[in-house]
Amino acid sequence: MKDITLKQIADTLGISITTVSKALKNYPDVSPKTKNAVLELAKSLQYTPNSFAVNLRTKESKTIGLIIPEVVHHFFSNVINGIIEEAEKSGYLVIILQSNESLELEKKQVELLINKRVDGIIMSLSNESNDDEHIKEIIKREIPFVLFDKISKFINCSKVIIDDQKAAYNAVEHLISKGCKKIAHIRGPVNPQNAIDRFLGYKKALEKHNIPFDYKLVYTCKNVTFEEGKEFAKQIVKNHPDIDGIFVITDLVAVGVLAFFNEQNILVPNQIKIIGFSNWFMSQVITPKLSTVDQPSYEMGVQSFNLLLEEINQKKISLDFIPKTIELETSIIERESTSER
Amino acid sequence: MKDITLKQIADTLGISITTVSKALKNYPDVSPKTKNAVLELAKSLQYTPNSFAVNLRTKESKTIGLIIPEVVHHFFSNVINGIIEEAEKSGYLVIILQSNESLELEKKQVELLINKRVDGIIMSLSNESNDDEHIKEIIKREIPFVLFDKISKFINCSKVIIDDQKAAYNAVEHLISKGCKKIAHIRGPVNPQNAIDRFLGYKKALEKHNIPFDYKLVYTCKNVTFEEGKEFAKQIVKNHPDIDGIFVITDLVAVGVLAFFNEQNILVPNQIKIIGFSNWFMSQVITPKLSTVDQPSYEMGVQSFNLLLEEINQKKISLDFIPKTIELETSIIERESTSER
Repeated sequence: MKDITLKQIADTLGISITTVSKALKNYPDVSPKTKNAVLELAKSLQYTPNSFAVNLRTKESKTIGLIIPEVVHHFFSNVINGIIEEAEKSGYLVIILQSNESLELEKKQVELLINKRVDGIIMSLSNESNDDEHIKEIIKREIPFVLFDKISKFINCSKVIIDDQKAAYNAVEHLISKGCKKIAHIRGPVNPQNAIDRFLGYKKALEKHNIPFDYKLVYTCKNVTFEEGKEFAKQIVKNHPDIDGIFVITDLVAVGVLAFFNEQNILVPNQIKIIGFSNWFMSQVITPKLSTVDQPSYEMGVQSFNLLLEEINQKKISLDFIPKTIELETSIIERESTSER
Repeated sequence: MKDITLKQIADTLGISITTVSKALKNYPDVSPKTKNAVLELAKSLQYTPNSFAVNLRTKESKTIGLIIPEVVHHFFSNVINGIIEEAEKSGYLVIILQSNESLELEKKQVELLINKRVDGIIMSLSNESNDDEHIKEIIKREIPFVLFDKISKFINCSKVIIDDQKAAYNAVEHLISKGCKKIAHIRGPVNPQNAIDRFLGYKKALEKHNIPFDYKLVYTCKNVTFEEGKEFAKQIVKNHPDIDGIFVITDLVAVGVLAFFNEQNILVPNQIKIIGFSNWFMSQVITPKLSTVDQPSYEMGVQSFNLLLEEINQKKISLDFIPKTIELETSIIERESTSER
């Protein structure tokens, strides 16, 4: 009795196994009449799905893979939170891998997840990623795939992003509205699209307000760390003491800038104003509190999983899936580092 | 020829299958003589292990499960980092689940991981966990299992811990050495063993230094948040203005205490000294910088995975595994919140 299969139900009713399967899962494209017949027969035969057989047939693992650059990172840990909570609601488990911003590791991890036959992959690219052969492999194999935050414009897949250029533009305009006339930018590494877009937003805001762009006022992070923030702050004070505003790629680096100014008794915001990006928790507890751009990280995780699930479900019923891009809103959070005192 | 099995080798030599398996894997507890005999026979029979059969037999998934209370948490995200980096070295993938400090969720997640047939489970208990039926189920099924940080003394499994009582004792003694005479303790919730042990360490240090213990000076967190820190600081100022030192269960809460004192212009450390626990990153960037107890979180992840792997490997060759407890060292980090200025 325990070995009743979909095939037996299908044969008895003279319909296909696929129809039986769909009927049991209550898919809309099976008529109510057929559904009833299947459900009644299944019930009378005491059919229970053999999950091992189901897995083998559908190749579903109910597991997805997530590759992010860093786990110990306020933004990414919030995204993880959004993804695993949302995945759990639909019965999916999440394998998490960390590329440590290394392209080589990222490639290995993609391979691992493909071999593991996960049902889908969500990813934010490492700073080193300037080559996308491994990503194309995911697409070629038709594994549902979503990129978020650090994406590539050259990959045709679903994406969850913010408008980095606009957000950066708003941040710099905020500094200008507070009276800043000579604004430096501590930017992210050269590869990531979001670092490029934030830089472009900075440049655009200067242009719009007739402030000449000077490439010497742009400092490029290699590792995006607290220590780099301190080091660039030192260089700014030494080489451009008349700078009165700084737009920083992310709060962690901005906190390093603030730490150096505090040590040197350089007054923020009176002498120089600072705005960060991402709204890390610590930004509201340091002195002075850091103005920043709020980025909905938890929501980014939720939306990424939901897009992935949509693609997984479409694929299950062999429907084509057209990749979607979801753009989330950002907002300026004004705190002490840009406010008159 | 391709179907030569361990059993045939064992029967031919008149030894057990386990011994054959161990000999092939070069385990130390098989005599060199037996090893040689097995290796020679295996070679002459052209034995090659069938990896699919091995998988089926050992039921290996090369995946482990990790259940932690919170992902967006400086301590836990560092532990995750240690676990996934160490697991990757041995070819293991890590499924991460978050109990949100809920016993109910934790139980569901244990069930999920058991059904998923992970090779092992690493876990830090939620604050609500006062019932361990779900944990006993893991042990009963002989799934390799390691507890870290928030453990239960009543479960016989491997553990990676610190000596919370001693660490707390040292923290309070540090306050006493700085001249504090009336010391409050903001403790963790009632269930977790580490909250109990830190409280006991606090009490012991007071006793040792002839400071009377007063239960009214003990404040109990429910959610262990920044906001609770602010609230308890307010109560302390209102009800016990003569308190001159506070030992706080974790840095996040201590940062809330500091934020309230800063708002009220209560001088730290001059009027009141504060020491936290866990050495969160932000503790070194706030004003004043927070003294704390350093806890090797990354190392805790590394050791937890290695203990689990040891048990997985022992189980593979059907050897008994005797649970081990690894205790990691902590140290006091003195910063501005307890230093004379």
